[in-house]
Amino acid sequence: MSLLVTGSIGIDTVRTPFGVSEDCLGGSAIYFSMAASFFAPVRFVGVVGDDCPFDLAKVFAGRDVDLAGLEVRKGSKTFRWAGTYHGAMNDRTTDSVQLNVLAEAPPKVPDVYRDSKYVFLANTAPALQMELLEQVDKPKFVAADTMNMWITEHTKDLSELLKRIDCLVLNDEEARLLSGQTNLIEAAGSVLDMGPTVVIVKKGEAGSFMATADGDRFILPGYPATQVIDPTGAGDSFAGGLMGYVAKAGVIDKDTLRKAIAYGTVIASFTISEFSLDGLAATSLSDIENRLETLRRSTEF
Amino acid sequence: MSLLVTGSIGIDTVRTPFGVSEDCLGGSAIYFSMAASFFAPVRFVGVVGDDCPFDLAKVFAGRDVDLAGLEVRKGSKTFRWAGTYHGAMNDRTTDSVQLNVLAEAPPKVPDVYRDSKYVFLANTAPALQMELLEQVDKPKFVAADTMNMWITEHTKDLSELLKRIDCLVLNDEEARLLSGQTNLIEAAGSVLDMGPTVVIVKKGEAGSFMATADGDRFILPGYPATQVIDPTGAGDSFAGGLMGYVAKAGVIDKDTLRKAIAYGTVIASFTISEFSLDGLAATSLSDIENRLETLRRSTEF
Repeated sequence: MSLLVTGSIGIDTVRTPFGVSEDCLGGSAIYFSMAASFFAPVRFVGVVGDDCPFDLAKVFAGRDVDLAGLEVRKGSKTFRWAGTYHGAMNDRTTDSVQLNVLAEAPPKVPDVYRDSKYVFLANTAPALQMELLEQVDKPKFVAADTMNMWITEHTKDLSELLKRIDCLVLNDEEARLLSGQTNLIEAAGSVLDMGPTVVIVKKGEAGSFMATADGDRFILPGYPATQVIDPTGAGDSFAGGLMGYVAKAGVIDKDTLRKAIAYGTVIASFTISEFSLDGLAATSLSDIENRLETLRRSTEF
Repeated sequence: MSLLVTGSIGIDTVRTPFGVSEDCLGGSAIYFSMAASFFAPVRFVGVVGDDCPFDLAKVFAGRDVDLAGLEVRKGSKTFRWAGTYHGAMNDRTTDSVQLNVLAEAPPKVPDVYRDSKYVFLANTAPALQMELLEQVDKPKFVAADTMNMWITEHTKDLSELLKRIDCLVLNDEEARLLSGQTNLIEAAGSVLDMGPTVVIVKKGEAGSFMATADGDRFILPGYPATQVIDPTGAGDSFAGGLMGYVAKAGVIDKDTLRKAIAYGTVIASFTISEFSLDGLAATSLSDIENRLETLRRSTEF
């Protein structure tokens, strides 16, 4: 079933110990869509300025990504982000952010997307996430990402959003901040109490943890990747693989969610293997299935 | 089959966000022995001063721990360590160290221990680890722990030791330091090239990773512990559970090593649940089996 994503499209400049990738394609909706398209048709919602140097139709050529929700706004400038990863690349510093078109009115969700059953609201202001969500009629499973700034400064909006979504995907630091709990297991439990029935905590190379309202607790290590060139987009690719698989499965149960997290983990390992989208773009479904099998064999005892 | 351990016995003072435990029992050989004794008879080698306030016979009462190798040295003082854990307790600072008897001649391995088949050399100077190992005739499987100081300052001794042991257990930071590799998977591979056929990298709450010379790669997340009061001894308990299970199994193969790491992981989760040895001392084998099953169920997909 089709999967709607709302998120950013960016012009990224990324520095890692392996080199610099200047003015390359990035953004949450981009990574998410390419990852999710391995499993389900994707409906894309995002906005760029008329300076955007990327031809997204070409980027997604041969993939089931519907760009009817892509707005090219005249007179506006595309979002830009520049960051540097250090050492083992678990930490990054943001060198510059130019919100540009992301600071203006959000894009509209096309009417033909209103019947979307699976929705992912990539990280942005929770009020905006709710506004986007209201343009979908009766979604079956809605997931959202968030970040520190919204947790500390838009607390009320975020609290409202959490009551309207099924699944929150966030990193360990954000889970601790949102819950006020140091222990991640307890943090995830506290976030469940805020509304979502599924909470997924991303821990970078340490993997991820899922807690569900019906009591499932799932822990998965990161994929044992030996090639880590550029971690940008790992989290959005993880969410894309995850939601793509859930949309394909069409049922929300423990087995589906666990396998979805495993697919997300594996897909993120391809994203980080090259700069920008190069790793993911060169990946086939059978590459993904092979790594899923490797991950399964690597964790059995 | 019986398992020989050489290591420290300490008087610890530990500060965590949950309180202070003053002058409590600690040391690598202590945690290791209690953990290993769930699976195999333990032969203990260690030395204290005549100021030692602990009755180790009482500590290990009802457990198969042979204290023939415990030396109480007249006129010497017992090793003391004080440390503080902060925040989420992934980091600790050492407040004070008094090596005392550990800076003197090492204890002797009793003659009746010479036929030990399984040996664990807890962290100390690699020259000393080799001296202890030479007092065992024909061990079947020897594992050792090490630390930063030996990697950077006793490089030659450590390199010699690595050729004489089967398994090195070390943490992620140490693996990076020893190998000069940032990526942990590659780091473990490089350490294999230095001699041991099994390398186990401990990553704290993120779990552990094993690489073997015959190509097995195993990743296991940490046990999802909600009660973390005092992480002291987690690594030595992990090694104890691991080596105890290997000694019990009596075979060194992929399945045994993987299950041994899972038992070590679970046993460490009991150690950290209380100060000092209180958590481990209150644990039964069926508690351990239950958590092993929980860990298995929590990681399947």
